[in-house]
Amino acid sequence: MPTATEDLAATLTPLFSLDARAFVPSPIRALAPLLSDPTVLSFAAGVPNPETFPAAALSAAASRALATAPTRVLQYDVTAGYAPLREKVAARSTARGLPVAAREILLTTGSQQGLDLSSRVLLDPGDVILVEVPTYVGALGTIAARRARPVGVRRDAAGIDLDHLASTVGRLRAEGTPVKALYTIPSFQNPSGLAMTKGAKDALAEACERLGLFVLEDDPYGELAFEGPGEPADPTPLASRIPGRTAYLGSFSKTLAAGLRVGWISGPAPFLAKVELAKQASDLCSSTFAAAVIDLYLAENDYDAHLSGLRGFYEGRKEILLGAMRESFPADCRFTDPRGGLFTWVELRHGLDAGELLPRAVAEERVAFVPGAPFVVEGDGRRFLRMTFAKEPPEKLVEGARRLGRLFSAAAR
Amino acid sequence: MPTATEDLAATLTPLFSLDARAFVPSPIRALAPLLSDPTVLSFAAGVPNPETFPAAALSAAASRALATAPTRVLQYDVTAGYAPLREKVAARSTARGLPVAAREILLTTGSQQGLDLSSRVLLDPGDVILVEVPTYVGALGTIAARRARPVGVRRDAAGIDLDHLASTVGRLRAEGTPVKALYTIPSFQNPSGLAMTKGAKDALAEACERLGLFVLEDDPYGELAFEGPGEPADPTPLASRIPGRTAYLGSFSKTLAAGLRVGWISGPAPFLAKVELAKQASDLCSSTFAAAVIDLYLAENDYDAHLSGLRGFYEGRKEILLGAMRESFPADCRFTDPRGGLFTWVELRHGLDAGELLPRAVAEERVAFVPGAPFVVEGDGRRFLRMTFAKEPPEKLVEGARRLGRLFSAAAR
Repeated sequence: MPTATEDLAATLTPLFSLDARAFVPSPIRALAPLLSDPTVLSFAAGVPNPETFPAAALSAAASRALATAPTRVLQYDVTAGYAPLREKVAARSTARGLPVAAREILLTTGSQQGLDLSSRVLLDPGDVILVEVPTYVGALGTIAARRARPVGVRRDAAGIDLDHLASTVGRLRAEGTPVKALYTIPSFQNPSGLAMTKGAKDALAEACERLGLFVLEDDPYGELAFEGPGEPADPTPLASRIPGRTAYLGSFSKTLAAGLRVGWISGPAPFLAKVELAKQASDLCSSTFAAAVIDLYLAENDYDAHLSGLRGFYEGRKEILLGAMRESFPADCRFTDPRGGLFTWVELRHGLDAGELLPRAVAEERVAFVPGAPFVVEGDGRRFLRMTFAKEPPEKLVEGARRLGRLFSAAAR
Repeated sequence: MPTATEDLAATLTPLFSLDARAFVPSPIRALAPLLSDPTVLSFAAGVPNPETFPAAALSAAASRALATAPTRVLQYDVTAGYAPLREKVAARSTARGLPVAAREILLTTGSQQGLDLSSRVLLDPGDVILVEVPTYVGALGTIAARRARPVGVRRDAAGIDLDHLASTVGRLRAEGTPVKALYTIPSFQNPSGLAMTKGAKDALAEACERLGLFVLEDDPYGELAFEGPGEPADPTPLASRIPGRTAYLGSFSKTLAAGLRVGWISGPAPFLAKVELAKQASDLCSSTFAAAVIDLYLAENDYDAHLSGLRGFYEGRKEILLGAMRESFPADCRFTDPRGGLFTWVELRHGLDAGELLPRAVAEERVAFVPGAPFVVEGDGRRFLRMTFAKEPPEKLVEGARRLGRLFSAAAR
């Protein structure tokens, strides 16, 4: 006999849209029971360290916003969002080498919403959007929700493989498949931590222009460039090279506070006009209050000094973790040495499967990481894994690397 | 010679999705130049009076949230949102006659996002969703963004015309058109201010069950029921009668603060599971901080006393405006007498067109309202208009009614 839940599902399923039938849960959230045990030492988190959020200064900004302009910051706003914050974002963007005006900025609920709105504006079911291998798994969920098709292009330490990009576009178009756009995270990518060089960005911009690709540049980590020895990463957004065909997605989630959910999108006027209509239909506007808190924080604090401290914090953690990994991991295990951001991407020896090792890592060594396969749309991602140095304190980073090294060495035998 | 903007549009337009090509701007936002002049006395606003937002108490709640749990309220949350607030919303929903558990609640960026997520879960291009005549214009934008088709069913002071509902569904299905759902605002509807009786809700629930319709119950005004003389409106959500086929959309926008952008959706488990996936792809989660502020506000304040004050405030304003309209409007001009909410819906004599009268009202009388046509998907909405009693103070309500009455009387001659 069917249960009440089965009856309900039988009644409702025929009413679901084709999009909804194709929705895929995040493969990482499916690992939650393994990843969320607080007694397990975690390299798995995909989030900034909440100790870095300037809570006292944000609290002062919130009080001040509500004391000085309560009827404004608690009311609906225009769809593009709180104008004073758009002014400041535009000024900062311009100072970073991507000149935009406040009217060319639309505030979003994190850069994830920028990605969703852009996908709604660009992608029909069956359309191809190119993505890096590996790429951010949350972008793949958004693409899937449009029933569009992510196709991978190879990326290495310098940038995207442009021969592979051109041949992939050529092959798909010869088959009659619309190839609309490239989704890229040029700086300190999630999951690899890699940053494109200036030359790689220049050449990629030219290739996108030549191939007629629109570009979604996701840049939540761009302001987390490390300042230590070595050549600094190129700070200029890709969008500055081809502003007429790039949507730039920015965010305060990694630099101020993820829970405020304030990001932004800038792009060419005809594209942004469509994004605004998509947002109007989605939620009218994002939180005015959260935007006002950030606006006052920026007005009353030295944000650049905060960013500098943040870079030092994450660079210190990165040095400690990578130092310990160099000591403890087997010699045939490779990993990226990021110059910014929150992640390193680890490649185990051929034949090992990070997804199979995760339950053993949790059970035997009480350490968690994220298996690489969900980040890889083409080729075999099973021997890869993502580790963050954002969450654990120094002594646990060292201890965790030691334990994981022990497991990987044993597994490789 | 084409301008740079035309060149850009020519490059980008072929990349836009079919959905994006069909996006329609809100017809009300197109009136912004007429409606947003601050020197004009306004019955046009579609927003709550910001003087009613408890700014000091919300400020205290914000400070306390950041002092007691900064690393939690500034961090990402699960997609369903901040659990303590979901507990409180569930308890309040249960007390109002719609029993739900916290796990059956998902927090949204206002009830508009609940509507958008529900539309993504239910509607394919070409699908029909039934809407009331008149209905909330923002819902029509969301439906258009899915390229679905709103079809009108008549509504009067008691409720929806069930014969019209059944014959419309029958006719469409006989033509082979999928009719998925009914979108309704049972209580103090935007724009009409009307509330369904208990009997009308009972009969509508039965009809939806019989016709196999899913129901989107939008209820942003349900807690703004007036308490003065006359039979009180039925307080029980429609969803309580057919919980297996209704999504209930709630909001704090009209009762606490619109700019926090906190609403919620509850519904049957298989539907809510799809909504959660749609939200994950849309923005990961809404603002944790905004939810925490409301959670602490509810914990530390007498929200029911606040609601009672709010009802008295809006009822007082309504009495003043309608009293003045009865004195000043021509005798053949009819309007609803709402028992809650923010709006009254005005019907001019046949032959008059509110859209044509608006520019004259602004230019000659310095008064603004919203023409009715955009709220009406079937039949002629041109002689209707929406007025809110939420914005202006008492003396301006009276003065504005006097001036509008003068214009309507002159126009009718």
